[in-house]
Amino acid sequence: MKLFTSVHDVPSIKQFVKDALELKANPYAHQSLGKNKTLGLVFMNPSLRTRLSTQKAALNLGMNVMVMNLDKEGWALETQDGVVMNGSTVEHIREAAAVMGQYCDILGLRSFPKLNNREEDYSEDFFNKFVKYCAVPVVSLESATRHPLQSFADIITIHETWTKKPDGKKPKVVLAWAPHVKALPQAVPNSFAEWMCKAQAEGMIDFTIAQPEGYELSEDFTPGADIQYNIEEALAGADYVYVKNWSSYKEYGKVLTYPDGWMMNNEKLKFTNDAKVMHCLPVRRDLELSSEILDGPNSLVIHEAGNRLWAAQAVIKAMLEEMNK
Amino acid sequence: MKLFTSVHDVPSIKQFVKDALELKANPYAHQSLGKNKTLGLVFMNPSLRTRLSTQKAALNLGMNVMVMNLDKEGWALETQDGVVMNGSTVEHIREAAAVMGQYCDILGLRSFPKLNNREEDYSEDFFNKFVKYCAVPVVSLESATRHPLQSFADIITIHETWTKKPDGKKPKVVLAWAPHVKALPQAVPNSFAEWMCKAQAEGMIDFTIAQPEGYELSEDFTPGADIQYNIEEALAGADYVYVKNWSSYKEYGKVLTYPDGWMMNNEKLKFTNDAKVMHCLPVRRDLELSSEILDGPNSLVIHEAGNRLWAAQAVIKAMLEEMNK
Amino acid sequence: MKLFTSVHDVPSIKQFVKDALELKANPYAHQSLGKNKTLGLVFMNPSLRTRLSTQKAALNLGMNVMVMNLDKEGWALETQDGVVMNGSTVEHIREAAAVMGQYCDILGLRSFPKLNNREEDYSEDFFNKFVKYCAVPVVSLESATRHPLQSFADIITIHETWTKKPDGKKPKVVLAWAPHVKALPQAVPNSFAEWMCKAQAEGMIDFTIAQPEGYELSEDFTPGADIQYNIEEALAGADYVYVKNWSSYKEYGKVLTYPDGWMMNNEKLKFTNDAKVMHCLPVRRDLELSSEILDGPNSLVIHEAGNRLWAAQAVIKAMLEEMNK
Repeated sequence: MKLFTSVHDVPSIKQFVKDALELKANPYAHQSLGKNKTLGLVFMNPSLRTRLSTQKAALNLGMNVMVMNLDKEGWALETQDGVVMNGSTVEHIREAAAVMGQYCDILGLRSFPKLNNREEDYSEDFFNKFVKYCAVPVVSLESATRHPLQSFADIITIHETWTKKPDGKKPKVVLAWAPHVKALPQAVPNSFAEWMCKAQAEGMIDFTIAQPEGYELSEDFTPGADIQYNIEEALAGADYVYVKNWSSYKEYGKVLTYPDGWMMNNEKLKFTNDAKVMHCLPVRRDLELSSEILDGPNSLVIHEAGNRLWAAQAVIKAMLEEMNK
Repeated sequence: MKLFTSVHDVPSIKQFVKDALELKANPYAHQSLGKNKTLGLVFMNPSLRTRLSTQKAALNLGMNVMVMNLDKEGWALETQDGVVMNGSTVEHIREAAAVMGQYCDILGLRSFPKLNNREEDYSEDFFNKFVKYCAVPVVSLESATRHPLQSFADIITIHETWTKKPDGKKPKVVLAWAPHVKALPQAVPNSFAEWMCKAQAEGMIDFTIAQPEGYELSEDFTPGADIQYNIEEALAGADYVYVKNWSSYKEYGKVLTYPDGWMMNNEKLKFTNDAKVMHCLPVRRDLELSSEILDGPNSLVIHEAGNRLWAAQAVIKAMLEEMNK
Repeated sequence: MKLFTSVHDVPSIKQFVKDALELKANPYAHQSLGKNKTLGLVFMNPSLRTRLSTQKAALNLGMNVMVMNLDKEGWALETQDGVVMNGSTVEHIREAAAVMGQYCDILGLRSFPKLNNREEDYSEDFFNKFVKYCAVPVVSLESATRHPLQSFADIITIHETWTKKPDGKKPKVVLAWAPHVKALPQAVPNSFAEWMCKAQAEGMIDFTIAQPEGYELSEDFTPGADIQYNIEEALAGADYVYVKNWSSYKEYGKVLTYPDGWMMNNEKLKFTNDAKVMHCLPVRRDLELSSEILDGPNSLVIHEAGNRLWAAQAVIKAMLEEMNK
């Protein structure tokens, strides 16, 4: 693996989940792989789970890690070509990325969308230029439109908890839109949908998305998903409910009005098959998701966050193995 | 040891000082203890000595270290239960702490008081919730009311320098309030008092506290201490003077008026038994403590800061040993 | 080597370049040298290349690294002696430096000039006090007047690319002033000039400096350099052109008016001997240096940034060897 930016970089989800769970069972078995190799983690935006889990994953593999909060420790980067740099940008991404590639064997990059211009955000211009110019393998730590390490951890969590039940039935997974006070990116739901659609195609799950009118995700990310507008109907028989807010894709970056009843709580859980509840975190308690669920037996959110480590470790291990070929 | 937040977590100061000095004599003897273990250092406030000495201590023990300046790199945490999170807090401490516990074997936390509400600060609500929800051993890197790694380094320094004198007499240790321009927490003096009172109970020292009227510490931290209001009388025969400013506990968080003469200088030193002078640093020169002392032979401040390393290493080592039981 | 702040700390450039290129050929051969040794990197200003390359260099040598962005994670330092610290400075450099020296075997320091007062900046007061009080070996990560790790990487790059040509001729190296929108320090050009003048004295190169009237560097840094005011004449026959902006030394810290034609581009390159073009980065594209050069075959800027690693590694290795004597 030379690039990890979406589910399209993963030949088989089933196999990749298996790899991750083997690492979870035996975290330190591959430390010679990472010896004298350095992972650089570059953040253009804040991070808690992603930074710590990816750093720990690399340490488990025997690597060194250098963290660079480029939004705080560095300076403004230019991404446009052909401009005279006589303004506020101090360095062009062509040089900045190429230089970081000189000191690191693998780079991770986090770069959020601005939510002003859909074409610009969905072009992934910044991320793609970084990949192009750094000239080393790159792991997405969340880009403008995707958060694949999160989605990988999510499918690991579903697989891990479901296979303890020996009934052979495929789980019904519902991505359920939830309210928020801020306009959030579509990166997490896009990515979750994309991974679940592929997992559905691999026969692992059945996948439903529920959201109010106007909050439909781009169809590029939802091939084969069952799209619903009534949350209670969508939840019927659900085994996993993945709660998440996102701003509108159609009216790009906007927070639209929506009918009552989209916060996930115990009342809603009654419609499900005693579903496990997931969220990528950070979660706004009692706005997106009720405290009663988060503090109760149906919540998987901490377990799911813990699996971020094994997702990252499986990705980095695959890159190190590719490098050693 | 599963928790290090105060002297109450330490069965015997004498033994713990001995452990620390053995590490100082042989810093790298226990590197197998920390192999594949990770220390997470979480800062809600700035730090210099604490961050570097604790990081180095963990490295000496063979651990990995991940530093998280949550005040700068993260986001605002909610601590209250039962609130709808539709305001400025992005994540609840229940989730944030639990997640960090997923990636770290031991966590260190720094969290200063706000100095607005005594009950709130002295409840140590934030710190205690972090400990409760992270579910791994926690080292205090200074909380609202205590700074135990500093106090441990202080008693190490006193023991180490005193035992070179073979006369058998117990040293007289004086905690001496000093002026400052800002309202500072009581964490360092509370903690120093608490450790010295226990050291006095263990027969290691005699302990006196001197401060102007209105600056009395909470009695919870000063059992058995000799409390004085006249600095010159308090200094009589002192072997160690621990200089420190703090704001009022009674009129909580306030800087009260005080009589002249509380800055420590060579004139004051004449009242002592050629006392060694200590300060936790950072120190305001010629406001709290004179330059002539800081740059002269009676100052222990750098030596004392150096011992922060061995204090931290003894604490982390005790936690690793508990973990391996 | 106990100090690395200028070319004056280097007995022979030729030998030091040879050492660096041996490390480049065999980066991990000296890991026992750094075992249980810690490098502390202290930044008073932002850094990208310097931070990552120096961190990686120390890791290659088996050291631990602790990074401290003192401008962001710490507090304001006092440097003047004899002042009552009742203002905004929280800690004196005497204590701060001494404390950092307690936890680190080698320290690196970055501290830019303020460009207000030439005497103050050129006295290197802050840097020299840090060196004095920390009491451990110090590597300059760029001071008010010099950036020696950059200059060392520059001469490595020139030597490495030139010696592939077997004609025996010495290369002509031209330091060429270029436009910018901000007032920049003289640290990089001072340091480059100083290293090139010594390399010229060692018979490695011929050295020319070209700048508009008023932009002359201090003569302390340019002994033996050929100083030119006409950029086209200066470029005649050049083998290497080192492009860099700096503010005036004479009218200290000012951006003076200058005639057109100082941006380096392909038109200018025609005057040279198909010169390789260098820049310390970050570079303002199409203001200092044209995109056509940066993206073309004559640019060495990324290669040169890559050599920062081997420059840092050679310096740190020399310090570790001195320590082990």
